[in-house]
Amino acid sequence: MDILGKSLVGFRDVTGSGDSFHGWNPATGQPVEHSFGSAKQEDVDLAASLASEAFVIYSRVGNQARASFLRLIASQIEAHAEQIVDRAHLETALPKPRLQSETGRTANQLRLFAGVVEEGSWVAARIDRADSQRKPIAKPDIRSMLHPIGPVVVFGASNFPLAFSVAGGDTVSALAAGNPVVVKAHPAHPGTSELVGRIIRECVRQQGLPEGTFSLLFDPGNTVGRALVQHPRIKAGGFTGSLVAGRALMDLAASRPEPIPFYAEMGSTNPVFLLPGALSSRGKEIAGQLHGSFTLGGGQFCTKPGMVFLPAPNISEPFLSEFREKVGNSPKPTLLTSGIQKSYQREIERRNVRGDLAAVARGQQADADAGFSAQVAAFQTDVSTLRANPELASEVFGPSTLLITFSDKEQLLQAARDLDGHLTATIHGTEHDLQEFAELIEILKNKVGRIVFNGYPTGVEVCHAMIHGGPYPASTDGRSTSVGTAAILRFARPVCFQDAPSAALPDELKNENPLGIWRLVDGHFTREQL
Amino acid sequence: MDILGKSLVGFRDVTGSGDSFHGWNPATGQPVEHSFGSAKQEDVDLAASLASEAFVIYSRVGNQARASFLRLIASQIEAHAEQIVDRAHLETALPKPRLQSETGRTANQLRLFAGVVEEGSWVAARIDRADSQRKPIAKPDIRSMLHPIGPVVVFGASNFPLAFSVAGGDTVSALAAGNPVVVKAHPAHPGTSELVGRIIRECVRQQGLPEGTFSLLFDPGNTVGRALVQHPRIKAGGFTGSLVAGRALMDLAASRPEPIPFYAEMGSTNPVFLLPGALSSRGKEIAGQLHGSFTLGGGQFCTKPGMVFLPAPNISEPFLSEFREKVGNSPKPTLLTSGIQKSYQREIERRNVRGDLAAVARGQQADADAGFSAQVAAFQTDVSTLRANPELASEVFGPSTLLITFSDKEQLLQAARDLDGHLTATIHGTEHDLQEFAELIEILKNKVGRIVFNGYPTGVEVCHAMIHGGPYPASTDGRSTSVGTAAILRFARPVCFQDAPSAALPDELKNENPLGIWRLVDGHFTREQL
Repeated sequence: MDILGKSLVGFRDVTGSGDSFHGWNPATGQPVEHSFGSAKQEDVDLAASLASEAFVIYSRVGNQARASFLRLIASQIEAHAEQIVDRAHLETALPKPRLQSETGRTANQLRLFAGVVEEGSWVAARIDRADSQRKPIAKPDIRSMLHPIGPVVVFGASNFPLAFSVAGGDTVSALAAGNPVVVKAHPAHPGTSELVGRIIRECVRQQGLPEGTFSLLFDPGNTVGRALVQHPRIKAGGFTGSLVAGRALMDLAASRPEPIPFYAEMGSTNPVFLLPGALSSRGKEIAGQLHGSFTLGGGQFCTKPGMVFLPAPNISEPFLSEFREKVGNSPKPTLLTSGIQKSYQREIERRNVRGDLAAVARGQQADADAGFSAQVAAFQTDVSTLRANPELASEVFGPSTLLITFSDKEQLLQAARDLDGHLTATIHGTEHDLQEFAELIEILKNKVGRIVFNGYPTGVEVCHAMIHGGPYPASTDGRSTSVGTAAILRFARPVCFQDAPSAALPDELKNENPLGIWRLVDGHFTREQL
Repeated sequence: MDILGKSLVGFRDVTGSGDSFHGWNPATGQPVEHSFGSAKQEDVDLAASLASEAFVIYSRVGNQARASFLRLIASQIEAHAEQIVDRAHLETALPKPRLQSETGRTANQLRLFAGVVEEGSWVAARIDRADSQRKPIAKPDIRSMLHPIGPVVVFGASNFPLAFSVAGGDTVSALAAGNPVVVKAHPAHPGTSELVGRIIRECVRQQGLPEGTFSLLFDPGNTVGRALVQHPRIKAGGFTGSLVAGRALMDLAASRPEPIPFYAEMGSTNPVFLLPGALSSRGKEIAGQLHGSFTLGGGQFCTKPGMVFLPAPNISEPFLSEFREKVGNSPKPTLLTSGIQKSYQREIERRNVRGDLAAVARGQQADADAGFSAQVAAFQTDVSTLRANPELASEVFGPSTLLITFSDKEQLLQAARDLDGHLTATIHGTEHDLQEFAELIEILKNKVGRIVFNGYPTGVEVCHAMIHGGPYPASTDGRSTSVGTAAILRFARPVCFQDAPSAALPDELKNENPLGIWRLVDGHFTREQL
């Protein structure tokens, strides 16, 4: 496949306007071949109109056809994996093995959703049968199920050039639910985006689906993204990125004449709680693994553990000395973009000079001449300082974390009650610790989307039960997940049929249950026909 | 029970500030005994704080205890039904039989939700089991379920003083999900609200639940409501009322530092489509029933059919002459409030003088001296006029409807495509009509929450499959329903547990499945233990 630097508006290659941009090689700090033009307002309008037209057809495509489409995308991504990985490596400097496994994850999640669509029960069909004898009035026949919501705008993420970008989780869940997708590519990996976009478009064509089922638009700034979120033909949005950008887009979505759901996953600081028993029995081991987790991928995961609560230093010494050593020996990772690197280094310098933070250790110094490299850094403070300076709980995107000592259980619980919403919380505890700190678990249920026990929050399993979301500001909608099959529920809404003749009902709601799906019939789950 | 004119902040009776108000007897236009004071900011703060404290306890109460609480409220409302109905009749002028049946519906929906809570499967438990042998990395154990969202503010509705007010659908679904509730009473029926509020509070006490589980605040204006929606301790809201008020509150909810879900059900015009075959075979019958539906309850239902599409006059004559007669013979209903009456009469007068609308018929003239009475009125126009004047599609709250003739199928389909979101759409059609107009059904799936076949949209069955909601502006969140058991899903969010030891898991997620609920285990529904 050739990279042409063009937006894909349905089946058309569209040359951008004067404002062109390049990807950058983070390892060298040099621009990468191919110039990309910004999409224009007319391209946004056309992509949205085509999506709206496509919705009429695509929303009615049968489960089998929709599943085949997703599987075809998966196999075509695998077929072009080498080219995609090479380009993504060039644009992100993420190691090739990581990008290979991310390619696998991207294909796997397409297939997982294909399975969900094919099985069919995700539509939450409900049937309450009529009772003509009921007094004082006859009971009608009421049936409902989920129905696709309409064209969805998806914003690619910087830190997952494959699994959360053009063919990533948001795109897949929106397509699986029956909605066309318009992707705003992340400008940090435009070539990768175009390659994957061309693959999806070719699958649309091969499957005989309508042109507007998929479009991909480029823009180094936020004009195109804002226009898409505000476009009357767009009915929902999915986003992964910063709090500032996510909130701004959510505000646009909410203030439209017709407000739309906007699911922004905005990252978080992912508190880790090291309880006394675990720390004294496994302190050294935890130190090594925690170091691995907060530096993984250059610390550029939404689930990076950026806040680590631990008991006063005497208990924690074996942990601390190992942790200090690991951090001190850390090589300098290359970050994804110059912007991320600059804002990371700025925040680290700010923390360096604060009197209320101690530097635990720093890794190899960043090399000013070698691309977007950065220094691993860990700091330490205590709960009182955190409570007095709540800005310390903000996410630092990059390879840094903050150790926070607590004096006693009550102080730790109070710190937990003070937390804002996060994607995850992690507890390391023995059986005894977990009994002793049972209240901590209860508090965290109201603070995060996922509680990890004796593990690490980085690494998000793509499965049915996963929740990758959390109360604001972790996401704009804590009722949802952006990873795992429940993500499909974000892009659907219920429709109800009263006394509909069988011919007018979708297959999912017919007496015969031709799809064999699970349904709630008169309040009871069953796969039987009626 | 005595009515004291006081807000109920937890277990405390709170005298309002200087700004006091009365209910009104719509039948006479005279004030009703008992003066009510407006809650003050400190009352809002206290109610929200108590609710937040109560959440810690109430969210952990077992399913049985929560179900008993709801059932106790139901039986206590029934025990006091006579006093409640008398007072509601005085404040709303709704007929006593209607209010008696609304009392029954209120108790029934409390019991329906009690059953859902007791059965327990509503939490959508999902379990993906670990696989330590998986390559390249072991698969963790992931389990998730719904968890209550936090304190909820509920706004009572003017048109359902019982079933959608203090102990109405929003309150019940929020309590059922495990959330404390702060109700802002509708000022049109304050005495009814206080009576029901005292009953709920007494049930909180009898069940040994924390004080802040329920509060009830009065205010004739919008200060208290705005303060509640903006209060940091409130985590979601439910509202039934006008588009202007609902949108204003939704905007407040979305613009908070921490945005919260706000479910406003704002009514709609509920288009009815009379197809040729049905109209020629049952025209007269439909005319009588449609008249009954649009004048029911003085036309003050969210689901009132306010727009009726029908073929050009020659086919429709039997319908039209019967409809004209029924409307002409209509008595003058008493509306709920002076404000509703005035705005209804103003809109009817506006429509009377429009050159592009014909008056089909008018009922008995309203009596200016006898309370809030109003004249039934039906108008007629055609699709071209509607398309040129989209404001004609706006809701008129009261006993009026608009007949709209279409020239051919394509014109009707275009009119359907032009529709904004509505709660319901209704189709009257023979088997042949429904085949011929199959595309109409497809279009309506994207326009409404419920499609009624050969029936009438007024009368909303409270059951598992009901959807009472719809795309904006019918509601602020078309992904939800405010009637039926799926309403519980509005006030919950998912929480996920990774590699949690059994002791740290909620019963819903333990291997043994002690509650015997339905769970999605490795992608398959089952009630089995693991």
